[in-house]
Amino acid sequence: MSDIKVTAAALVIGDEILSGRTRDENIPEIAILCTEAGIELSEVRIVADVQGQIVNAVNDLRKEYDYVFTTGGIGPTHDDITADAIAVAFNVDLPVSEEAKALIVSKYGEMDFTPERLRMARIPVGASLIENVVSGAPGFKIENVYVMAGVPVIMRAMLEAIAPTLKGGKKMLSHAIDVGVGESTIAKGLGDIQKQYNGVKIGSYPKMGEKPVYTQVVLRSCERLLLDEAAQKVQAIVDEAHRALDIDLPPKLKKALELK
Amino acid sequence: MSDIKVTAAALVIGDEILSGRTRDENIPEIAILCTEAGIELSEVRIVADVQGQIVNAVNDLRKEYDYVFTTGGIGPTHDDITADAIAVAFNVDLPVSEEAKALIVSKYGEMDFTPERLRMARIPVGASLIENVVSGAPGFKIENVYVMAGVPVIMRAMLEAIAPTLKGGKKMLSHAIDVGVGESTIAKGLGDIQKQYNGVKIGSYPKMGEKPVYTQVVLRSCERLLLDEAAQKVQAIVDEAHRALDIDLPPKLKKALELK
Repeated sequence: MSDIKVTAAALVIGDEILSGRTRDENIPEIAILCTEAGIELSEVRIVADVQGQIVNAVNDLRKEYDYVFTTGGIGPTHDDITADAIAVAFNVDLPVSEEAKALIVSKYGEMDFTPERLRMARIPVGASLIENVVSGAPGFKIENVYVMAGVPVIMRAMLEAIAPTLKGGKKMLSHAIDVGVGESTIAKGLGDIQKQYNGVKIGSYPKMGEKPVYTQVVLRSCERLLLDEAAQKVQAIVDEAHRALDIDLPPKLKKALELK
Repeated sequence: MSDIKVTAAALVIGDEILSGRTRDENIPEIAILCTEAGIELSEVRIVADVQGQIVNAVNDLRKEYDYVFTTGGIGPTHDDITADAIAVAFNVDLPVSEEAKALIVSKYGEMDFTPERLRMARIPVGASLIENVVSGAPGFKIENVYVMAGVPVIMRAMLEAIAPTLKGGKKMLSHAIDVGVGESTIAKGLGDIQKQYNGVKIGSYPKMGEKPVYTQVVLRSCERLLLDEAAQKVQAIVDEAHRALDIDLPPKLKKALELK
């Protein structure tokens, strides 16, 4: 753990997410891994199975951020074009890797090693493999880009394989405060506290449609002392807002808040 | 419904998604709306509550695609900076809109119209409002950019408000085929059919970790005749793969497949 800020981007590749047919389950996993590792996930992109789109996104993101995590498009079928796109992005060849081939053979056996499965053994020159304990066919890492499967169970396995190798920066700490009033009521106080604390990021998240009215305030900072100080001030205005409710609220709503 | 292709991008704005604290629920809603409207959702980006990031993403996406849908960052607190960022992106002022103010007042009453709620009435010059039946404070549309709330229930209300105004292109039709074998088994056949049908996009989605092994093939095209023809060919190779299973499969797995 160091003092520098370490950043990352995720690139989700797949028509099925953009058409709404499949709901992405990988972005939250990557987000949580980054947060735990002290890495700031700064941007996510979702693109279609179109080579130009993948190449442009990979080249944009790998220059901008310390790590890039891609998911999707490394299976055995014709629509799995991520390895090809990564090879184009890095301007390297995409030969069959004997190491990758051995991993796939060990899973399926020599007999079932079809030409289509061979497709999954094509790895860009210069890349190292990412283990896939679920189904054998590996992902790969080239420079700062980690190429993983889209199937959530495999993606998670690959994420676990790479997690110990990632170098995080200073870890982001957070403090959540539940608020029994709408966010407008505390908005001015929050804004004032935010102005005093540059090193703390204060977010306000209304839970609309929930009764009783409910807001969550989340403070985030790499500095424990600053975070605690700002959190105390937020708690004070929240307590005040709750006390004000005691006077003004109709008994029924007051009761509901107490039950929370 | 016309013959031209209409494209869109979604831009999700919010630290809470990138930190993994909140799971996005809006992207699938936008994806499904687009698909139903004959609009191709071509790209999604998720960025932090950072003005520079929002401005760059909006300016990239609005040039590239016919529609841009943003979610998040239009509430009353200091961390809601989307309206400001959009005004910067379009290089226009951000005055209080009397129309927006009236909508918010009509929801909360004049007395509860705090300065923080006034913040939600700031609308970029040249924008028109998007109705919010849930909580009053409107979204807005400026040129081809639709700025909506991040709270899912409000976002959905806004999406319903704009849906009738969107002009879709030729509608994408789809045909899904369930396959009781792993995708490697049919990969060659699928690839061959894909080569014959440029106008049809064939996707293969393995459901890993599920027993019995299961794959879904999805064909998509704007041309009904082409789609049906390609789907018939895929169905034929799938039927063949299933028949082959009858001979080779251990009785137990065969039974499981039949039960499916």
